[in-house]
Amino acid sequence: MENFVFQNKTKIIFGRDTEGQIGEETAKYAKKVLLHYGGGSIKKSGLYDRITESLKKAGVEIVELAGAQPNPRLSLVKVGIELCRKNGITFILAAGGGSAIDSAKAIAAGVPYSGDVWDFYTGKAAPEKALDVATVLTIPAAGSESSPSSVITNENGGFKRGLTNDLLRPVFSILNPELTFTLPAYQTACGAADIMAHIMERYFTTTKCADFTDRLCEATMKAVIHNVPICLKEPKNYDARAEVMWAGCVAHNDLLGTGRNQDWSSHGIEHEISGIYDVAHGAGLAAVFPAWMKHVYKSNINRFVQFAARVWNVEIDFHNQEKTALAGIAALENFFVSIGMPVRLNDMNIKDDRLEEMADKCSGNGSHTIGGFVSLDRNAILNILKLAV
Amino acid sequence: MENFVFQNKTKIIFGRDTEGQIGEETAKYAKKVLLHYGGGSIKKSGLYDRITESLKKAGVEIVELAGAQPNPRLSLVKVGIELCRKNGITFILAAGGGSAIDSAKAIAAGVPYSGDVWDFYTGKAAPEKALDVATVLTIPAAGSESSPSSVITNENGGFKRGLTNDLLRPVFSILNPELTFTLPAYQTACGAADIMAHIMERYFTTTKCADFTDRLCEATMKAVIHNVPICLKEPKNYDARAEVMWAGCVAHNDLLGTGRNQDWSSHGIEHEISGIYDVAHGAGLAAVFPAWMKHVYKSNINRFVQFAARVWNVEIDFHNQEKTALAGIAALENFFVSIGMPVRLNDMNIKDDRLEEMADKCSGNGSHTIGGFVSLDRNAILNILKLAV
Repeated sequence: MENFVFQNKTKIIFGRDTEGQIGEETAKYAKKVLLHYGGGSIKKSGLYDRITESLKKAGVEIVELAGAQPNPRLSLVKVGIELCRKNGITFILAAGGGSAIDSAKAIAAGVPYSGDVWDFYTGKAAPEKALDVATVLTIPAAGSESSPSSVITNENGGFKRGLTNDLLRPVFSILNPELTFTLPAYQTACGAADIMAHIMERYFTTTKCADFTDRLCEATMKAVIHNVPICLKEPKNYDARAEVMWAGCVAHNDLLGTGRNQDWSSHGIEHEISGIYDVAHGAGLAAVFPAWMKHVYKSNINRFVQFAARVWNVEIDFHNQEKTALAGIAALENFFVSIGMPVRLNDMNIKDDRLEEMADKCSGNGSHTIGGFVSLDRNAILNILKLAV
Repeated sequence: MENFVFQNKTKIIFGRDTEGQIGEETAKYAKKVLLHYGGGSIKKSGLYDRITESLKKAGVEIVELAGAQPNPRLSLVKVGIELCRKNGITFILAAGGGSAIDSAKAIAAGVPYSGDVWDFYTGKAAPEKALDVATVLTIPAAGSESSPSSVITNENGGFKRGLTNDLLRPVFSILNPELTFTLPAYQTACGAADIMAHIMERYFTTTKCADFTDRLCEATMKAVIHNVPICLKEPKNYDARAEVMWAGCVAHNDLLGTGRNQDWSSHGIEHEISGIYDVAHGAGLAAVFPAWMKHVYKSNINRFVQFAARVWNVEIDFHNQEKTALAGIAALENFFVSIGMPVRLNDMNIKDDRLEEMADKCSGNGSHTIGGFVSLDRNAILNILKLAV
């Protein structure tokens, strides 16, 4: 096991009707907030009314910024930063999925910074302070509700880049599974693919001994695999929705990665896809992850055998470990297909004409490699993209 | 799943040589600390020197209180409270196992309280503030290094009682698995029994749907079951020691109990035993838990079948679920025996002459029941104690 530091300050308030606590919780931090959300879905569902009512009841003044969209845009972040500065706002409440939350985090980091907030996403600078962020989660997927991460897309060039900093962990997050009852099947499945990816990026490690966190990863994957199909069949099944929501949060709050090397190649490669094509991040991952696996599995057959046996209950072929490993990868693909995910870029109308461009961007024009499980250069990235087409 | 709130502020600093960070971390909070520990073991191992050196280097003044012992005593807590008050101390650093840490937490709660600190343990009062506590853990067992709990024994009457309050979560905890290399086999095994109990008290629930946390509990138990025998055979196996140390912490930091009813009967009953006989808490639990299971399993055979199949890999007898359930309980007993734990009170020289007294104390002379999985009255408690003899 590797040395690590683990601390997660986010207060998780989980369960039915918990959005009624927003006003009281928010008032502990601020009397004026930026309420940041996406389009009309929270208005349609009545969540917007419940949030604003709770805030007003607690005497909290609201400034609004709507319009956060999937693959949240840098331009809106900059609007938010100015809005906060102009109104003297120190607290941002994001209502929605990972897009609204990641956008809120970017605003939070940008307000006290004199430079361009994009500096944090290119690695040119690191935030030294940030406004407080809290969330009301409506889509179990990104795990942003208690993670230190934010992913933003710069429309100028189609760059999608991430920032990770403990300052960005929300101070509290409201997780009410009932808010996910109306989530369309496709979004439910995209969320599941994203959650699975967050676990697998941690699971496929070069750390030799990580037995406990291996088992935690396997447990979390099994909970997702078991409950997502139930959510798709019975969208208002509270318990299944609750399991997925809590598993999605724990999947990305860093616990599962403690003490182990991680490999975020698939996320990196997918960011190039959704940066250009604006497809759902989870759908992109469903295509990229199996392709990544096919490219790397030979470097550590044992780990893929463990994945097959423990996560997918594949019977081990002791005479042919490779067959077992491939059966595990096939099981993952089959799962994605079964929940309605595309597992080829073709299925999302992405052809092979811009693969070179994506490989260039992902490798800084071949100037660096990505990945820890297996180091990937530009050609390897290109090969994975080809396998994904 | 039940509604829940989960927040754990403790910063875990995990790995080799991490005790060298104590001074720097402590100095963020205070320039003067109470260093609280047990007997000579931290002096013998050199840990004492490394801690004091790191603190001094960071300019932190040290006031010492040694003498914390297994089943930590109220009398020493009161000495610590006076010592802190006299020296204007606001920060307590506990070095040791659960005893030193629980004792430190009691002191932390007692200093700002004008009444008798024992009030918090009888439920007569609840702490409204507490000093900051940090820990250097040397025994994976109690989970007190990131839990909100403290258990103290009042020598006046042999009462062992617990206090749970989020104010008592340590601000940081240093977990260096190397510090457990010299732990005797018996203490390693007692720790394992305590860790298993912390998970099982959460696992045996009446909450119908708790799939994700079921799986997390199972994963954590399996990590303990797999790694503790390695620790016993190879006391200096870093990886096995690390797995047990991290699993022991997560077992009791509340994550595994989120969204589910819990049943702390076995802990309650064991406290009566170690309150009187001063046996190791883990050893007492190894005798009580299987007895509790034998008393209650018929109320929910399915859960015991799941325990048998998923945790112990017992092949399910589909024609005789009860047989499967009992095989799971037997597997737990066999595991305890295999690591050198007593599974009968007799093995600890505890006879049946004071069982009635313990049942009386545990049930408030029959005035209340304990337990959530199955409600236990005085007679049920007595029956479990008899099964444990």
